[in-house]
Amino acid sequence: MARTTGSDGEKTEAAVREAAVSLIARLGYEAMSMRQLGTEVGVQAAALYRYFPTKEDLLFTLMREHMEGLLEAWNAARPATADPASRLAAYVENHIAFHIERRHATHVSNMELRSLSHERLTQILKLRTAYEKELRAILRDGAEAGVFEIDDVGLTAMALIQMMTGVIVWFRPGERLSIAEVTTTYLSMTMRLVGAKIDAESPARPSERVKDAAAL
Amino acid sequence: MARTTGSDGEKTEAAVREAAVSLIARLGYEAMSMRQLGTEVGVQAAALYRYFPTKEDLLFTLMREHMEGLLEAWNAARPATADPASRLAAYVENHIAFHIERRHATHVSNMELRSLSHERLTQILKLRTAYEKELRAILRDGAEAGVFEIDDVGLTAMALIQMMTGVIVWFRPGERLSIAEVTTTYLSMTMRLVGAKIDAESPARPSERVKDAAAL
Repeated sequence: MARTTGSDGEKTEAAVREAAVSLIARLGYEAMSMRQLGTEVGVQAAALYRYFPTKEDLLFTLMREHMEGLLEAWNAARPATADPASRLAAYVENHIAFHIERRHATHVSNMELRSLSHERLTQILKLRTAYEKELRAILRDGAEAGVFEIDDVGLTAMALIQMMTGVIVWFRPGERLSIAEVTTTYLSMTMRLVGAKIDAESPARPSERVKDAAAL
Repeated sequence: MARTTGSDGEKTEAAVREAAVSLIARLGYEAMSMRQLGTEVGVQAAALYRYFPTKEDLLFTLMREHMEGLLEAWNAARPATADPASRLAAYVENHIAFHIERRHATHVSNMELRSLSHERLTQILKLRTAYEKELRAILRDGAEAGVFEIDDVGLTAMALIQMMTGVIVWFRPGERLSIAEVTTTYLSMTMRLVGAKIDAESPARPSERVKDAAAL
């Protein structure tokens, strides 16, 4: 889309996205006007339409990029091992780190699905399904290998994702707990929830990657 | 408030609340106008102001009654026993049953806190804290009695509440699972998550109350 308009255009587009995420998170998508968004970024509403021909194009772009970013982050974090407990630990670490850094975008992605057209909603849900499928595969492998105790793979995946995403509701950097401490506690809750038959200490310990992220 | 205007007034007020919950869940609070709400209920916008002098009065009333209802439901469901596992099972059953029946109201209560004045937000957060405190007390009693294995009582309470409330996002009555089946699975996940040192079958089995509710 507007990516070809050069670096000023790219900077403006990035500023538009950032301001849109924060306005939508604060007001809701329906209540936000392109005029308000223009004022926030310091451009005419007409100029916004060069980047996003409709308000729904903007919403869809924010949501698609959020989900694509999550899938990319998981592909980068995914360990080479086949061990279900290590894969689950990596999934939890990546999920928490990704969402804590994108609190407003997560809020928008979860709340504004109602405002997408049917076709675009389907596209976003496909990306979600692809991401959740990764977790279901880990849980299923663990259950089949007899290292996890799971009653229902689908419900367990939803329960874990909602438990982990919920971190953004209450977590604020700089308060009682660091990201690494929160992640450690969520890892051990996750391992117990799936009935992992392992030394609770070793795979539940956050990796160096998470410690590095927390230090940023 | 308008409770004194007699049974027609009460019916109108109830219709206003019901329509408001569904409109706010669909459009967002900021985007909903009192005019739209009046049209939905079939009364003049001016008449709405007899019941709710401001739009924020309406939002606050919906949120306060949601939380008061949840606390009342828990007070009614709370078992007489001191046994932490039975109390936790009752809390989970009540939480899931209450929220599944009030999907839109839960959505509004979770999403529209941003639109309350500071003083009213404080009142709602006090009610939430009172409700969460009940869960923390159960978890703490279980940890102290050595029947639960808990790293952090506060984080565990948040994780459980978000995991359970998340049911409303994907659960639809009449699909693959009944409320009783969902509750049974969530109970066993909860018991494992808190490391309950008990026969996983007995307290994780939904009570007759839940089975009755599911049959409605």
